[in-house]
Amino acid sequence: MKQYLKHDPWLIIEEDFHRNYNEITESVMSLGNGRMGQRGNFEENFSGKTLQGNYVAGVYYPDKTRVGWWKNGYPEYFAKVLNAANWIGIQVFIEYETLDLQTCEVRDFRRVLNMQEGYLERSFVAILKSGKQLRVNAKRFCSLVDDEAGAIRYSLTPLNFDAKITLEPYIDGTIRNRDSNYDETFWDEVRKETAYGEAYIELRTRKTGFHVCTGMGVEIEQDGIRIDFQSQPIRQEKYVANRMTLDCREGQETVLYKYAVNLSSLNYDRDHLMAEARKYIQRITGKGFDRMLMEQRQAWADQWKTNDITIEGDAAAQQGIRFCIFQLNQTYSGEDERLNIGPKGFTGEKYGGSTYWDTEAYCLPFYLATADPKVSRNLLLYRYRHLEKAIENARKLGFKAGAALYPMVTMNGEECHNEWEITFEEIHRNGAIAYAIYDYVRYTGDESYLVDYGLEVLIAISRFWSQRVNWSEARQQYVMLGVTGPNEYENNVNNNWYTSYLAAWTLRYTVEAVGRVKQLNPDKFNELCDRIHFREEKEIATARHIVEHIYLPYDENRRVFLQQESFLDKELMPASEIPKGQRPLNQHWSWDRILRSCFIKQADVLQGIYFFEDDFDQDTIRRNFDFYEPMTVHESSLSPCVHAVLASKLGLEEKAYEMYLRTARLDLDDYNNDTEDGCHITSMAGTWLAVVKGFGGFRIRDDQVILNPSCPKNWASLAFKIRFRNALLEVKVTQSEVTLQNFSDQSAPIVLFGQPLTLAGKSRKTVNRKTDSVAPDPA
Amino acid sequence: MKQYLKHDPWLIIEEDFHRNYNEITESVMSLGNGRMGQRGNFEENFSGKTLQGNYVAGVYYPDKTRVGWWKNGYPEYFAKVLNAANWIGIQVFIEYETLDLQTCEVRDFRRVLNMQEGYLERSFVAILKSGKQLRVNAKRFCSLVDDEAGAIRYSLTPLNFDAKITLEPYIDGTIRNRDSNYDETFWDEVRKETAYGEAYIELRTRKTGFHVCTGMGVEIEQDGIRIDFQSQPIRQEKYVANRMTLDCREGQETVLYKYAVNLSSLNYDRDHLMAEARKYIQRITGKGFDRMLMEQRQAWADQWKTNDITIEGDAAAQQGIRFCIFQLNQTYSGEDERLNIGPKGFTGEKYGGSTYWDTEAYCLPFYLATADPKVSRNLLLYRYRHLEKAIENARKLGFKAGAALYPMVTMNGEECHNEWEITFEEIHRNGAIAYAIYDYVRYTGDESYLVDYGLEVLIAISRFWSQRVNWSEARQQYVMLGVTGPNEYENNVNNNWYTSYLAAWTLRYTVEAVGRVKQLNPDKFNELCDRIHFREEKEIATARHIVEHIYLPYDENRRVFLQQESFLDKELMPASEIPKGQRPLNQHWSWDRILRSCFIKQADVLQGIYFFEDDFDQDTIRRNFDFYEPMTVHESSLSPCVHAVLASKLGLEEKAYEMYLRTARLDLDDYNNDTEDGCHITSMAGTWLAVVKGFGGFRIRDDQVILNPSCPKNWASLAFKIRFRNALLEVKVTQSEVTLQNFSDQSAPIVLFGQPLTLAGKSRKTVNRKTDSVAPDPA
Repeated sequence: MKQYLKHDPWLIIEEDFHRNYNEITESVMSLGNGRMGQRGNFEENFSGKTLQGNYVAGVYYPDKTRVGWWKNGYPEYFAKVLNAANWIGIQVFIEYETLDLQTCEVRDFRRVLNMQEGYLERSFVAILKSGKQLRVNAKRFCSLVDDEAGAIRYSLTPLNFDAKITLEPYIDGTIRNRDSNYDETFWDEVRKETAYGEAYIELRTRKTGFHVCTGMGVEIEQDGIRIDFQSQPIRQEKYVANRMTLDCREGQETVLYKYAVNLSSLNYDRDHLMAEARKYIQRITGKGFDRMLMEQRQAWADQWKTNDITIEGDAAAQQGIRFCIFQLNQTYSGEDERLNIGPKGFTGEKYGGSTYWDTEAYCLPFYLATADPKVSRNLLLYRYRHLEKAIENARKLGFKAGAALYPMVTMNGEECHNEWEITFEEIHRNGAIAYAIYDYVRYTGDESYLVDYGLEVLIAISRFWSQRVNWSEARQQYVMLGVTGPNEYENNVNNNWYTSYLAAWTLRYTVEAVGRVKQLNPDKFNELCDRIHFREEKEIATARHIVEHIYLPYDENRRVFLQQESFLDKELMPASEIPKGQRPLNQHWSWDRILRSCFIKQADVLQGIYFFEDDFDQDTIRRNFDFYEPMTVHESSLSPCVHAVLASKLGLEEKAYEMYLRTARLDLDDYNNDTEDGCHITSMAGTWLAVVKGFGGFRIRDDQVILNPSCPKNWASLAFKIRFRNALLEVKVTQSEVTLQNFSDQSAPIVLFGQPLTLAGKSRKTVNRKTDSVAPDPA
Repeated sequence: MKQYLKHDPWLIIEEDFHRNYNEITESVMSLGNGRMGQRGNFEENFSGKTLQGNYVAGVYYPDKTRVGWWKNGYPEYFAKVLNAANWIGIQVFIEYETLDLQTCEVRDFRRVLNMQEGYLERSFVAILKSGKQLRVNAKRFCSLVDDEAGAIRYSLTPLNFDAKITLEPYIDGTIRNRDSNYDETFWDEVRKETAYGEAYIELRTRKTGFHVCTGMGVEIEQDGIRIDFQSQPIRQEKYVANRMTLDCREGQETVLYKYAVNLSSLNYDRDHLMAEARKYIQRITGKGFDRMLMEQRQAWADQWKTNDITIEGDAAAQQGIRFCIFQLNQTYSGEDERLNIGPKGFTGEKYGGSTYWDTEAYCLPFYLATADPKVSRNLLLYRYRHLEKAIENARKLGFKAGAALYPMVTMNGEECHNEWEITFEEIHRNGAIAYAIYDYVRYTGDESYLVDYGLEVLIAISRFWSQRVNWSEARQQYVMLGVTGPNEYENNVNNNWYTSYLAAWTLRYTVEAVGRVKQLNPDKFNELCDRIHFREEKEIATARHIVEHIYLPYDENRRVFLQQESFLDKELMPASEIPKGQRPLNQHWSWDRILRSCFIKQADVLQGIYFFEDDFDQDTIRRNFDFYEPMTVHESSLSPCVHAVLASKLGLEEKAYEMYLRTARLDLDDYNNDTEDGCHITSMAGTWLAVVKGFGGFRIRDDQVILNPSCPKNWASLAFKIRFRNALLEVKVTQSEVTLQNFSDQSAPIVLFGQPLTLAGKSRKTVNRKTDSVAPDPA
């Protein structure tokens, strides 16, 4: 845990240069716009600790897997988001010295991520070995408006000298991925071009053949006036630059504007990629930095309008939740159904930037509640587009007749992961993908999705479940053998309650969806049946038989669901009995010891109860929470949020707050000592859940907004915004009151503390939390 | 399956050169003497398919492991037997041509491994591109008498030309291991030396620092007369040679004798290694090839006298079983307690040449019955010497108080393997090591081993079992969670019957051994208690409590032991129902499908019944055999032998013969398509078991030799030899009779077909199998 970043409601502030933490700061201060992302690296040369990172969404490389002992069915490759050409670089030479914060003295250093307006700013005074003092101010952003572009304003002011300063803004394609398995390089050069104040390089990924053209345009300003300059073109292997030498006087500000684009063959004809890049550069250069920044401010203001959360009375908490929302919005804009949300987003290479079940289980609810429904729909379509590959994946493992197993980790629909107990057995991901369809339809009311896409996916997943269970003669029930649940601290167990429950639920929901689609659009239903050879009667009968006869382990004495059938054979004890200094367990205990222990990485059963809370009464929920919570060590970043939501539901305010704290500032405080690899993007959605579904008690049920809001004791107020169908609402809760506001014209059906009410368009209502009375506010 | 090798009772014959099978033939025709081993490579250059291999016992290299996903507790290194300097090499140049069987025409090729006399012979006529015809005859052996040496007689006869022929016998240290994880080289050169007709090179292994000096002495004979020759010394990086050019006439035989040694710093002071090598070379050169070969013949004759098996009426079977015995004797001579038996012996690199549980479970009975007891004792001492490391290994995994977990795979006592489900969970190996102590004491009657070494190992292993089980409150029994049994087609199961039974047995036997040692030598017992802090009363009470309350899964309906508690939840079906073309499963099914299936790689429960057959009545054995045998796919080379033994015991002659056939010619016929990697040395001991314990019905029980011999229908007779204490016996069984012969002076207590008899020294008895009458033969 580190606490060197300053607390502020809208800014992330590093004061004084923390050299040793630089890679952490780079992760935290990453910028992105859904199409591209850039770590908080320096523009000028830096020979100290740094992890360079520029990522172009959807461009990946199949890295050869590293396996100790090969198992049939393993994939050959792990698709990884690639470090693309460095577009931010600006080399600075002051006569014979190079500006490099590692080799000079640094004063008045300040690096600030402005979350409100979406830019990164850095200022410092460098004192070179020669004694020359240079003030630098750098500001940059990845534009939300021109979302394949970034812009930089890089200003230099000599403080105690006159000199010729040489600037070399460049594009560098000689980059590598630190996370590469065999230290391979991934890019080949296709072509390059330099012109006055411009330079372009087109690279092609090996194997996958993606082309990316990175280009730049440069302008120089002195004393606030744009000047012409002599520019020497530099063309080296995978490297292009403009070099210009300027006379700089003491006290005079020289500003270099660098406009850059990353265009990929995903979106452009590769034959015209460089021409398009030139056009793009000319367009944004014409627009200019100030106007681009103004547009950026406006775009972010629009974002915040629909999804800000405000916490009064706790700056750290305020900063934490805004940081989560900011990063989620930077990572995924929802405009392109080919893209998804990697666990590290655009903030690092770790986990390859691929898609996990995190998207459906944790991120989708955030986008459902804060963005246009098309954003969530695109997340669903991403999986729909991968259905064929999921069927092929299942076929490889011995399943048939259109059964689909979605991959544990993927980029393009193919499985990337290679641990048998996960790749082949952590199959609950399939259920989360089915659940997401349900969640989307429930939230948006958009049943057309079921008709057009959802049902096809549901049938394929249900076919998988039907084949994955088997009839146990001994039990006279269906069993599901060899499973790893979300609690990855048990592997290859039999009858994991969560997975079996989810499987049965999927079968039930598929049967229901079949009925619904037949009703909504019988023609499309028949067309689907033909296309995928759906034998309705037989498959539905099988599904029903499984649902009725599935074995779900249960302890009659404690009246709790059992994580897996043999859980009670373990020595049960609370995590508080783990001796000091042995946590996290995964850094201190051997794997077999962890597996045999009762300690839980993230609680399966509670995850299931969270998904299907309406299936269980409050006492059942409480018993299971009380049984599992003490044994849970939360060594998954996705764990505490679910506990926070359930604790809130059970009125366990302190526990809910404790759980919230574990996720809220995970990266800002480098809680797990791993933020240098990148930020935990998907778990940020969990933080949002802990606030909005937890403290906020927000649900959608029966086409209504359900609210049971509370406010942690040490906060003055909590306010969050939600979009529900065409309404934009704000819920503000203080220690005494709840205020509901409807910003839209559309009225919204709400159930507040169990009382139904309709919040008319453009209206506000305040409820006293103690007296439960509903007092309409004057709008 | 390939059948290109000719059947012969004593010889393995390749006629015509099978280029594409060359690596298989090289494996099969490997030579060894327990100290060094050499694959059946060619002496002259060969640019075709070949796996060069010279292995020096005990010299290994810690190869950096390759792991996909690291788990706490994994070892960093995998110790591997190393390919050492090539000592057999002889380059042959005929004027401007190089002799290379890949590039010339080959006639009259014949490669023969003579198992009776222990040498490899090869002859051929090479027709060079120039049309020159050269007859070559090469004969070599690894000497049993001078067991760090080998000798080669390499003869050339020009058939249609006179020419200058240049010979370059060499030592080449630029070798690599094909099985290296990161393609590293393992050897550094220390020094080299050349002299007239001699050359030496001393290499040092990286990291482990073993020194090996490989040296050679050369003599030349023409027309049967030793001649002087001009020799040019060659000294290159890691390469030394003598080059000599000889006038050779048509029809004239030129013979090069090459004497070589491999001396290692395991056995010599490294400062004097090269001097010792020089002395050794001079000594054996003085002895000469013919005398060395005569000694070799005699040494092998002595071997066969004590452990030959003869099968009349089936040449393939005869060849198969002799090949097994030959290779086992070549691999381990039992003189050095630091050495052990790798799964590939000296015939290949695969599996690193390290020690597995194969040694205790399969090989020990062979050496007990065929060799001096000190050989078996040395196998036991190998593990005793590793006890400290086994305790350290267990400590790393969280066990304490002197608990020992022996490694799954090891060279020097440290764990090498890195698959969690095996490394941490396939812990039955610990039980096999305890069982071997019991087996040894039962066979030899040598209880002093228990006093001096055995009990200490037993206590440490029992401590492990006591901690590895845990009390299940739910069952009110001890359970053993997270185990992989010998059936590696189930992983991480709970309550594997075999492992739990073996654990309980170990605890029982340890309690018994404590009592015995106290009685035999109370002083040593007390000294041991002090040294290892053995709290007799408490530890014995714990052991007894576990033995009384361990959970052993059992099916009340079928009255069979259950491989693991959930076995009956699987869909049970015989292996005969596996669709054609899907076997071996491990090459056709995904790993999870194999794990979830009922199919068994090698049957756990039957392995346990085989070990502890006296604990079960014949009906119980039959029920379990009938239940498990049909589901067993025998995809471990160690599986069929156990089934063969049990089938013989149950009178299932056909099944016994079928199972015998699956192991007997595994390598000779390349049954599994993998002999090119090396021979399955440890499974050869299994073949011996199938014959001697299976058909022979041989056991040791209550200090008596138990015999229930039978003879497969298509054999005229089966005869095997056994050493029991000081007696050397032969059992010969035909379709009608059993003849027992005692070659020694010592009388032997025998129970034949349930009837006790004493076979006096130097006597013979024949029993009619039909009438059961015992008719003493005239000696």
